[in-house]
Amino acid sequence: MIREVARIEIDPVDTERFEAAVAQAIPHFRAAEGCRSFRLDRSVDRLGQYWLVVGWDSVAAHVDGFRSSSGFQAWRALVGPFFVGPPDVDHVETALDGF
Amino acid sequence: MIREVARIEIDPVDTERFEAAVAQAIPHFRAAEGCRSFRLDRSVDRLGQYWLVVGWDSVAAHVDGFRSSSGFQAWRALVGPFFVGPPDVDHVETALDGF
Repeated sequence: MIREVARIEIDPVDTERFEAAVAQAIPHFRAAEGCRSFRLDRSVDRLGQYWLVVGWDSVAAHVDGFRSSSGFQAWRALVGPFFVGPPDVDHVETALDGF
Repeated sequence: MIREVARIEIDPVDTERFEAAVAQAIPHFRAAEGCRSFRLDRSVDRLGQYWLVVGWDSVAAHVDGFRSSSGFQAWRALVGPFFVGPPDVDHVETALDGF
């Protein structure tokens, strides 16, 4: 499994509405092929900064599969209007699982 | 619990030695007061990019406690020489735990 890590910035005044929109979009990830887990983290240092952490079977499941799907379009329709810039996306694998 | 999320960049030629140095430093986190978990993620998109994800009881346990400790000095002595710039550090809390 790999994890998509996406840093998302929104206007802090939209915090509640953004989190509600993300919650509403969860079924689109749950239905996505190869999607294993979904979490939204909120920065406590920088208001309006979020980290989306989504587990996928592979990078392809995310990039080739999900991004071409209607689920992705639904996700972006819900949350895209809150983005103040393009999300900064990385894909990671565990190098060391300390404890 | 909060999580420290630190983006670390190293020269890709140092990958193996960097990961070995991080592994060697794990006991300093295990011994740190208020430290709950430790993981190092490796980017599969950008060679030499890593994400350190450390669970703490609070931001203060990390910033006021650990950073003033000899364990932090030992950590930095082991891994600091590999950094090509200062790590980009954020602290996050779970906003939505989807699945």
